[in-house]
Amino acid sequence: MPLLVMKFGGTSVGGLGRIRNAAEKVRREVARGYDVIVIVSAMSGKTNELVDWVEKTSPFFDAREYDAVVSSGENVTAGLMALTLQEMDVPARSWQGWQVPLQTTSAHSAARILDIPRANIDAKFTEGMRVAVIAGFQGISPEGRITTLGRGGSDTTAVAFAAAFGAERCDIYTDVDGVYTTDPRIEDKARKLDRIAFEEMLELASLGAKVLQTRSVELAMRFNVRLRVLSSFEDNDENSGTLVCPEEDIMESNVVSGIAYSRDEAKMTLISVADRPGIAAAIFGPLAEAGVNVDMIVQNISEEGHTDMTFSCPVGQVARADKAMQAARLRGDINFNDLVADKEVAKVSVVGIGMRSHAGVASQMFKALAAEGINIKVITTSEIKISVLIDRKYMELAVQALHDAFGLDKAA
Amino acid sequence: MPLLVMKFGGTSVGGLGRIRNAAEKVRREVARGYDVIVIVSAMSGKTNELVDWVEKTSPFFDAREYDAVVSSGENVTAGLMALTLQEMDVPARSWQGWQVPLQTTSAHSAARILDIPRANIDAKFTEGMRVAVIAGFQGISPEGRITTLGRGGSDTTAVAFAAAFGAERCDIYTDVDGVYTTDPRIEDKARKLDRIAFEEMLELASLGAKVLQTRSVELAMRFNVRLRVLSSFEDNDENSGTLVCPEEDIMESNVVSGIAYSRDEAKMTLISVADRPGIAAAIFGPLAEAGVNVDMIVQNISEEGHTDMTFSCPVGQVARADKAMQAARLRGDINFNDLVADKEVAKVSVVGIGMRSHAGVASQMFKALAAEGINIKVITTSEIKISVLIDRKYMELAVQALHDAFGLDKAA
Repeated sequence: MPLLVMKFGGTSVGGLGRIRNAAEKVRREVARGYDVIVIVSAMSGKTNELVDWVEKTSPFFDAREYDAVVSSGENVTAGLMALTLQEMDVPARSWQGWQVPLQTTSAHSAARILDIPRANIDAKFTEGMRVAVIAGFQGISPEGRITTLGRGGSDTTAVAFAAAFGAERCDIYTDVDGVYTTDPRIEDKARKLDRIAFEEMLELASLGAKVLQTRSVELAMRFNVRLRVLSSFEDNDENSGTLVCPEEDIMESNVVSGIAYSRDEAKMTLISVADRPGIAAAIFGPLAEAGVNVDMIVQNISEEGHTDMTFSCPVGQVARADKAMQAARLRGDINFNDLVADKEVAKVSVVGIGMRSHAGVASQMFKALAAEGINIKVITTSEIKISVLIDRKYMELAVQALHDAFGLDKAA
Repeated sequence: MPLLVMKFGGTSVGGLGRIRNAAEKVRREVARGYDVIVIVSAMSGKTNELVDWVEKTSPFFDAREYDAVVSSGENVTAGLMALTLQEMDVPARSWQGWQVPLQTTSAHSAARILDIPRANIDAKFTEGMRVAVIAGFQGISPEGRITTLGRGGSDTTAVAFAAAFGAERCDIYTDVDGVYTTDPRIEDKARKLDRIAFEEMLELASLGAKVLQTRSVELAMRFNVRLRVLSSFEDNDENSGTLVCPEEDIMESNVVSGIAYSRDEAKMTLISVADRPGIAAAIFGPLAEAGVNVDMIVQNISEEGHTDMTFSCPVGQVARADKAMQAARLRGDINFNDLVADKEVAKVSVVGIGMRSHAGVASQMFKALAAEGINIKVITTSEIKISVLIDRKYMELAVQALHDAFGLDKAA
């Protein structure tokens, strides 16, 4: 029988009524002839409550005990989902991670999946079970202890099951109805995309579109799992939501697929750094060690052996970055006149696989921003993305201007 | 190293502060030189919440899924307890039932313990761990599914671990400071017993003293585990609480150890039953099939081939008993003139191993009740217990009178 993986996040199972609603969606797929593997998160709020208890108990907690505690939320949902399906006369049973067993590394709280043996679940499908309900986010280490997969772990679980069982598709049910050309709260002409390529989704996810975790998209890309994002709270059909798929499955698309943004940015500039070989390593080594997530980097043209070095990082890491740089100066590792932090910036990016074959996207972007009088502070580019740092107060205007400039309100 | 088992019930771990309080008691035993196995219940209220969700989801639930859901409460407490101990620099780790593995039958929600292999936990003690924290109430079936042990399952878990590991003692921490000669709410001269024999505890437990579950006492008796009941909310020393132990460990005791009572009783009388061989089976067979828990049975002297048959059962089962008897009469299995139910009765019992060697306890009991003008409706006796059914309005008076008559306010 063809097999589907369906994943329901915390808000989609945030109470008995919502679990019933989700189960009804599963029942419909079974009625259509699918065997289904359902991955469930903890009921919304439950994991946070457990994390809070652990952190209050032990500020520097043993991650093995943390995992044992926080994984319990998913176990509850899995049992309740199986019971709900049984009430609907759908043959179903639940599995906790260790029962599958979903084998992971021993990196507690951030474990990586090693293997998902199919035997246990396949045996039950053979006996007539139609739905296997899996507690997401968790597995078992080689030492026999419970592990968790870290943020977005349930999405990752879903994609891994879809890969292991050769599922026709992996449907991620969430509280939005798909992936949009940009945030509809900022641009009311934002349009839901029917399809988006893995690479584009990766850029959008890491740029702050919170629909799917980067890690699950990477996994889906590696194993060629067709992912669909859709809403738990709407009636869906075969064409609902957004399909995240290989590039070759998208016949036509706009040159630019979406506009992403991030408010949480700061720009830091080291003024008049002695420009010598190894200077970049001397700056960014200590920043990495201090746990500063440096994003964009720009080096000005060198004048008389000195240069300005600019980088961006999350606003919350400015103090940490400053401390690391002052310490490096004290040690004599680097020399600079001043370190200037601008915490009032935002990043806006245009993303699209079409850029690979279409020139002129950058200049079109810069023109659109210039037309609105928006000054660009830093620019970086990748094969399918152009990002700029601008004053934060212009962020919404920039997103709207770019959405218009690339005609994103209209389908390709 | 000598080993202790310590069990903490729901109210004793009903929040982070209480878990810390319990952990402090464990730490002190470790400081005294004990290795400790701690058995924990779910935080108070948690199991009820989970049971409620299951019952709302599925009135005739799959007990395997029920067990998977309701066992999660203990897992949370076990992890938090291990973390709390680690914070106190006590080397500790948690085990869920399947990790031990605590092997049980497949009778979900009422599983019986088959075996507790020591290897996993012993290995960790050898490596320097001082405390093994075990999620109580749960195990794993031969099919690899999570089972629960039913009511009082955590007490039973504790006793089973004490037996398997040859513990010096099994301390049951609860919200009372021991076993009393009777309920202090009824008789303010009630006195805490330092020691009580297993057999006495069994009679008191099944008669409604809610301190320990009957099943755990039976298990302790079978494996000769010294049980101690004591309070989580007091400072304890070696002599705190009540020790439940083999009869031979009690040097001196009163003839009567305690007075138990039960309000939840009804007396039913079948008037003028045809007295023939097999009549008792014809009456009590259908009652058992209907799920009526018959306790006391009295048959009057037969007159002219007819007799009155009286039995007691919980008040809530009167309607069920009535239905079963009327149906048996309709089928022609039994014949009687009338069925009279008296729902205003209570059972009062005196319990003591001393009765075996002391005659006259019954007559002393009846005299004490007569002196207060209390009429006895039904009497039953066992080797170490005499129970009477009386009007419920005299119950407290009867308990007080008997407590006085047997001098229970004074130690032996």
